Amino acid sequence: MIHLGDAKTCVPFCFIMRDMENFKLRILGSGSALPTKMSNQASQIVETHDKLFMIDCGEGTQCQMRRLNVRISRLNHLFVSHLHGDHCFGVVGLISTLDLLGRTSDFHVYAHKDLERLVRPQLDYFCQGLAFNVIFHHIDPKVSEVIYEDNSIEVRTIPLKHKVPTCGFLFKEKPKQRHIRRDMADFYKVPIREMQHIKNGADFVTEDGEVVPNDRLTKPADPSVSFAYCSDTAYSEKILPYIEGVDCLFHEATFLDVQKGRARETMHSTALQAAEIAVKAKVKRLVIGHFSARYEDHKAFLSEARSVFENTELAEDGRVFRF
Amino acid sequence: MIHLGDAKTCVPFCFIMRDMENFKLRILGSGSALPTKMSNQASQIVETHDKLFMIDCGEGTQCQMRRLNVRISRLNHLFVSHLHGDHCFGVVGLISTLDLLGRTSDFHVYAHKDLERLVRPQLDYFCQGLAFNVIFHHIDPKVSEVIYEDNSIEVRTIPLKHKVPTCGFLFKEKPKQRHIRRDMADFYKVPIREMQHIKNGADFVTEDGEVVPNDRLTKPADPSVSFAYCSDTAYSEKILPYIEGVDCLFHEATFLDVQKGRARETMHSTALQAAEIAVKAKVKRLVIGHFSARYEDHKAFLSEARSVFENTELAEDGRVFRF
Repeated sequence: MIHLGDAKTCVPFCFIMRDMENFKLRILGSGSALPTKMSNQASQIVETHDKLFMIDCGEGTQCQMRRLNVRISRLNHLFVSHLHGDHCFGVVGLISTLDLLGRTSDFHVYAHKDLERLVRPQLDYFCQGLAFNVIFHHIDPKVSEVIYEDNSIEVRTIPLKHKVPTCGFLFKEKPKQRHIRRDMADFYKVPIREMQHIKNGADFVTEDGEVVPNDRLTKPADPSVSFAYCSDTAYSEKILPYIEGVDCLFHEATFLDVQKGRARETMHSTALQAAEIAVKAKVKRLVIGHFSARYEDHKAFLSEARSVFENTELAEDGRVFRF
Repeated sequence: MIHLGDAKTCVPFCFIMRDMENFKLRILGSGSALPTKMSNQASQIVETHDKLFMIDCGEGTQCQMRRLNVRISRLNHLFVSHLHGDHCFGVVGLISTLDLLGRTSDFHVYAHKDLERLVRPQLDYFCQGLAFNVIFHHIDPKVSEVIYEDNSIEVRTIPLKHKVPTCGFLFKEKPKQRHIRRDMADFYKVPIREMQHIKNGADFVTEDGEVVPNDRLTKPADPSVSFAYCSDTAYSEKILPYIEGVDCLFHEATFLDVQKGRARETMHSTALQAAEIAVKAKVKRLVIGHFSARYEDHKAFLSEARSVFENTELAEDGRVFRF
């Protein structure tokens, strides 16, 4: 029995909770070109290892952050999938607000090079004397490459199939450290200074020269968690190698299958196609969104996708997914 | 007793309703630079004589129109007071949406000339092949001039006092026609073809050559209704001649009086100052807004302004004022 007020049990309990929630995905906007009462233009927040990353930034994204109590000051990185307005009309407003909130640290924007050309004149006009740098990292959406990396995660682009150059993003935790078996560490009297090497897989040599293999001292590391964002895109099996086995796939589903002709024309996907991709990529979980404004509710998207891939959820504004 | 289903009484009843509501002012955004949960960035819709006019267009304005069921396709004219982001970051998104909705008729934007320079490259990139013209009318905010006119209303700029060139807008109905006294028209056997002249003030000459003075045949015209929008501005008595006696004045009240030093620095007004302007201009009604994000609720704005000018209301998002 766990008493939350008990200091001895509280620490491991918190540890378990964190471990179960390596990634938190928050939907700020689940809509597409035309915002509706239900669905803002595209934007999501990935929260992992105490860092916030924004994917896409349609108009009104900063307002959604306020409504949903997302701490805007913690945001350092914005990834823009492509330059259609519903994915980037909120960029200037967001940066302007960061400025008004007193930001001084760099803000990074990963996007097709044209975004900088379009946004700079606006920043120069509306945000004169910015106290921080806005650093644009130019993406080439035609190739897959690692565009961001830190101690705990990396972000790789996924070339998508759309009317303008577009890429998705694969967020992946780096391989984690193995867990020390405290009983064995005590038994072999492993000094503290050796612990880090052993967590990284090293064997241990005792004072007597005995080599203790790593797997006697440790338990396997937790698996690395991954999340893939694929929007906007027509149905394309070329993305399968990038997203295979991910813990969570966000795939656009702008239309229902009855409008698959319209989906093909506009280079979007249907809910059925998103689910077929999820099956073929053997992902653990599918979240669908980027719904066309023509649909007044999204239940049919869910049932259509679930008919093919059961573990599907709707990316509605304000929803949070943990994995 | 009026039966709404009774055709005889329904017509005059509708007439009275329309007459009481020459102007409908709908607040889309009552906030200032930083949007909050309660307050979107600045935007209002003036509806009069079956036409919609937008004043200012902060980020998320088109989303607010959706939420508040404003028919976006009926909008033909946008007036932008000044080029701070919270008054114009929604312009490109709004035009993009008009395009997606299939618009073909001209859309008019009245703003400082720099807006066109900033917005055109975005329209060229994001809205290629627009099926309608976006016509920018360049305002010189330093002088007062009539910038829009049709059969029923005119819109005049009001130079304001702010950090960048800024003007307010005075919407004023044109003088209306006098009302024919049906009993007298029957008595003097006025032919239908003369009615229009008489409504416009002409006397009537009978077949016998008798001159019937206009005021025997008519009752006075309804007064012309007027609305003034003054935001953003420091306290300035120079605006009084433009707004004197208006039926409704929207005046910004970014701060409370305890922050009047901050108001002065940023060239904004306090609720008290807005009310003082209302008193001095002898306006009939005051609506205050453009609240700073630092205030969690706006009750203190209302009590502060009402202590000086009783007929004050808060311009909160979604509110509609009729006059």
